[in-house]
Formats: sequence, C-alpha cells, structure tokens
Amino acid sequence: MLQSYQDILNKGLQDYQLPNHPRNLYEPVRYLLNLGGKRIRPVLVLMAADLFGGEPEKALHAALAIEVFHNFTLIHDDIMDQAPIRRGQPTVHEKWDTNTAILSGDVMMVEANKHLTKTEVTYLKKVLDVFNETAQGVCEGQLLDMEFEKRHDVSIAEYIGMIRLKTAILLGGALQIGAIIGGAADADARLIYDFGVNLGLAFQLQDDILDVYGDPEKFGKQIGGDILSDKKTFLLLTAFQQANEAQRKQLADLVGSQHPGKVAAVTALYDELNVRAFAEAEMDTFSEQAFDALKSISVNDFRKAALLDLAENILAREK
Amino acid sequence: MLQSYQDILNKGLQDYQLPNHPRNLYEPVRYLLNLGGKRIRPVLVLMAADLFGGEPEKALHAALAIEVFHNFTLIHDDIMDQAPIRRGQPTVHEKWDTNTAILSGDVMMVEANKHLTKTEVTYLKKVLDVFNETAQGVCEGQLLDMEFEKRHDVSIAEYIGMIRLKTAILLGGALQIGAIIGGAADADARLIYDFGVNLGLAFQLQDDILDVYGDPEKFGKQIGGDILSDKKTFLLLTAFQQANEAQRKQLADLVGSQHPGKVAAVTALYDELNVRAFAEAEMDTFSEQAFDALKSISVNDFRKAALLDLAENILAREK
Repeated sequence: MLQSYQDILNKGLQDYQLPNHPRNLYEPVRYLLNLGGKRIRPVLVLMAADLFGGEPEKALHAALAIEVFHNFTLIHDDIMDQAPIRRGQPTVHEKWDTNTAILSGDVMMVEANKHLTKTEVTYLKKVLDVFNETAQGVCEGQLLDMEFEKRHDVSIAEYIGMIRLKTAILLGGALQIGAIIGGAADADARLIYDFGVNLGLAFQLQDDILDVYGDPEKFGKQIGGDILSDKKTFLLLTAFQQANEAQRKQLADLVGSQHPGKVAAVTALYDELNVRAFAEAEMDTFSEQAFDALKSISVNDFRKAALLDLAENILAREK
Repeated sequence: MLQSYQDILNKGLQDYQLPNHPRNLYEPVRYLLNLGGKRIRPVLVLMAADLFGGEPEKALHAALAIEVFHNFTLIHDDIMDQAPIRRGQPTVHEKWDTNTAILSGDVMMVEANKHLTKTEVTYLKKVLDVFNETAQGVCEGQLLDMEFEKRHDVSIAEYIGMIRLKTAILLGGALQIGAIIGGAADADARLIYDFGVNLGLAFQLQDDILDVYGDPEKFGKQIGGDILSDKKTFLLLTAFQQANEAQRKQLADLVGSQHPGKVAAVTALYDELNVRAFAEAEMDTFSEQAFDALKSISVNDFRKAALLDLAENILAREK
C-alpha cells in the first residue's frame, strides 16, 4: 500500500529535471535529494490527496515541493548546527562549502515554490497559503531550537511549542496541501492538518524517549546522543521539573560536563524520577489527538486504513 | 512624479506587520528594511502597473514582495562576501550572527512569497512564474559571481551573463510583475521585462565605470574599490583582452598585489587601453536596447514619461 505511493514519488523524483548550470549550484541539490531518507512528508501529500478521492498523481508536484522544501531546511540547519554527517554521508557544507550550501539551499526554496505553481489554479492560493504558513513556522522553530541551546529556563510548554514548529507542522502542512489538491472540504483539510501536527509531536517525543531507552540495534542513532550533547529534550526538562533539590543539583552538574559515566548517570536520574512514564503519557496524549482528528474526517473509514497504518507504524518503532 | 510612487511604497512599508516573535528572527528583517536604500525595484513594480492603467496601489503587495526578496538576497550575499557594512550600518551577520542571518534571510523569502499570494487569482500563476524564474536566476548569478572570483579565464560574455542574472533580471522581473498586475498584454509585459534587463545591464556597466572614473563626491563608494578588491569588472576583463603582452604582464602583476600605487597604475593602463570608451560603448548599446523596448510598448508615449525619466536619471548619475 505504502509502496504504491513511494513508487509514484520515486518516479517523480527520477523525472525531476534540475538545470545543469551552474553545476555547483544544482549538484548539491541533486546530491542531497539522492541521499534518500524516508520520504514520509511527500508520501503524506499523496496519501492525503488519495484519501479525498483525488488521484495521488495530481498531487505529485506538491509532494516534490514538500520534499525539496524539507531538504532545503536540512541544508541550512546542517550549516547552523555545524553537522558533518547527514544520512551517513558528508553534509553539503562539508562536501562543498558554506557559501555553496547557503545558496543551494536558497535555490531549493525557489524550486519548491516552482513545483507548487503547478497546482490547479482553483487550489493555488489555498495551497500556497498553507505552504507559506508552514515554511514560516519551520524557520521560527529552528530559531527557537538554536535559542534554547543557550537558555537555562526553557519550559516544557516552550519545548512543545518549538518541536511543533520545527517538526510537527510540516507533517500537518504536507497532509493539508494534499487534502486541498484532493478536493477536501475546508473542515476536513483542517482535521488532517491536526492529525499531522499531533502525529509529529508524538513522533518527536518518541524520538526523545528512544534516544535514552531505544534498542541500539533498531534506533539508528547513538543511544544517549541527546544526553551527551545536553539537548533540552522533553526528558531532561521533565527531570528538572520533577527533581528535588539534591537531584536537581546532581543533574545540573552532569549537564555540560564531560563526565565519562554521564549517559548512565543521567539515565539513572531519569529512572528515579520516572521521566519515561511522563514522556510516554505526553506522547500518548498527542497520539490520541491525532487519531481522534483522523476519525473525525468525513470520509469512509476503509479509506483511512493506509494513513492509520502509517501512523501506527511510525509510532511503534520500538514498542 | 517619482515621489508619488515612493509615498505609496513607504506607506506600504509602514503598514507592513511582521510578527514580533521570535524576536531574533524578525528584528533583523525590520532592521534591514529600515536601513532604506533607493527602493528602485519596488517603485518599478508600481510604475509598471500604472503604465498599463492599473492602480499602482493594486501592485503594492508585489512591490513589497520584490523589496523583501531583494533584501533577502542582500542578507545572504553579505554573509557569503563577509561584508561588514551595508548602507553605512553593520550587516545582519555582524550585528547578530551568521546563523541568525541565514534564518532571517530564509524567512524573508517566505515573506516575499506571502506578499505575492495577495495577487488577484487571475494573475497569480503568471506573477509567481516570473518571480520564481527571477529568484532562481538571481541565485545562479550570485553563484557565478563567487566562482568568477576564483577563476582567471572569465570572458566578457560570461561577465555580462553573470550581471544579467545577479542584477539585471530583478529589474526586469519587477517591471514585468507590475505590468501583469496592471493588466498588460503578454507582449508588452515581455517588452517591459526587456527594458528592465537592459537598463540593469547598462546600470551595472555604469557602476563599473564610475568605480574608476566617478566623482568621489557623488559616487558614494570608494573610488578604485573594484581595483583594490581585484573584481573582474567589465573594465578589467576588457583591459586584459585589449592588452599587448607587456601590458598583460603588467596588469597580471598588479592584480592580486598589495602595491600602494595599485589604483593609479591600473587606471593608467585602463587609459592607455582606452577601456573606458569600450565600456561606455557597451553601456550605450544596452541603454539603446532598453529605450527601444520601452518605445515598442503599445501604450501612449506620454504615459511612458515617468519610466523614461527614471531610466535617464539612473543612467546619468555622473555624465
């Protein structure tokens, strides 16, 4: 089922003709798009169009727009985070240089917009409005994420607000755009947006949990990576919130330290403070809100099976 | 005459509400937009709409889009060029930091697109197509400009191609977008684009000339700045093309050197080689093409007076 959407998308990516010149502008774009990735966001565009009875192919240009936009954010985020590796390969600013990465990112933003202008004119403005709102939010989320690194008073609510912008609304926007192109009524397009946003929030919280409690064989990233980099995840913020004075001091001493047993010590504190259960409860709340929104969409349930399946798969990587 | 367009624009900029939060994302945008500048590009949008009988106010959103887009390119170009000063004030990456400048630039691109979506739906796709084509070309031009710094075999044709993309097409695109919103026929919209592109080329060549031969009181930049930074301008490329072997060696020794008499020595070679006349002839060719295109537009001549005036003013800063 999922495979059929991925086939449409892969065909679209293969047929996607970027200019050849100037080579150093477009080569990084090709490089990044060819690194693969799960392509969940563009697949969501196609699935949402299909849900409302539109041909998924009709939404292919929008799916490509979302995938290109997502990769634009990766190129620029990797510069800002000074990340050397993306999907197991050198990042664009490492393989080329920062200036090329800035400019190739910029041109990807233009390319994303070009794909979107292929939308049927009836839906064009609506689709652009969702896209621009989403793109703006993603920029805001990235700025907040950078600011949070330097702050010591980030609240849990602020953290949720940040991951909503940085991660969740792009899932929502992708689905809403697909729904609009598929001919959904406004209320349904809004519900599928809510489904996507809550799914994205649940997904990010799961990621926070798996970073500490995941199976190293399945997680794909280093266990404890967030702890080592002092990332203010839901777990860390909750631990600070739940800690007594002694525990808070212990935690504060560990954060920012190069202590060799740091991951084990922080995890022990998380266990003492029952942090995992808090995170799972929060994740379940968002999952339920996602599934409730999906249920409320005025389409026969059997048409929702594919999205339901995908969501359950995304949220059950480990459990 | 010009003033009335500038008034409309300034009112539009005053009324333009950017979000307040996150402050560090939008503060740099406000800062840069408030630094002023000549605002030629957005004024061209309004003038073009007016030329074809559209209310200039009808094109205000597009004028703002062009101004915001132009400032987006300045923010990112200044990072890439490591420029400390813009319009007499610290650049955004100096006043804040590079990451903020990347991200504020990105969000300006989104803001530009948001302004454009306010275009009447009849014209929306056409306007977006011109805008995206222009934005893509500007990215390509910036990449070529950076590459030319490292190359020693840039031809005059390549240089013209680069300044066309980096500078000229945005004037063309601004005019074409205004024309479309003003209700111009396709042929006229294309002619006004040609007017703008050729005007832009003439303007850039004039800038190359004034860098060496301008009146220091009027030019506003340091005389000889291009020579000191070894910029491959039309003058330098023409000098290399016209030089005999001895002169070429002299010039090659000066380029890249820190010689204290560098500006005078290079200027002396330019004089020997009659480089100024070549540049002025090229500039005149583009001016003529610009004015020919303007003449060919199927609108009464008296309506063209304002644009003709503006163009003549732009191209006669010194003469």
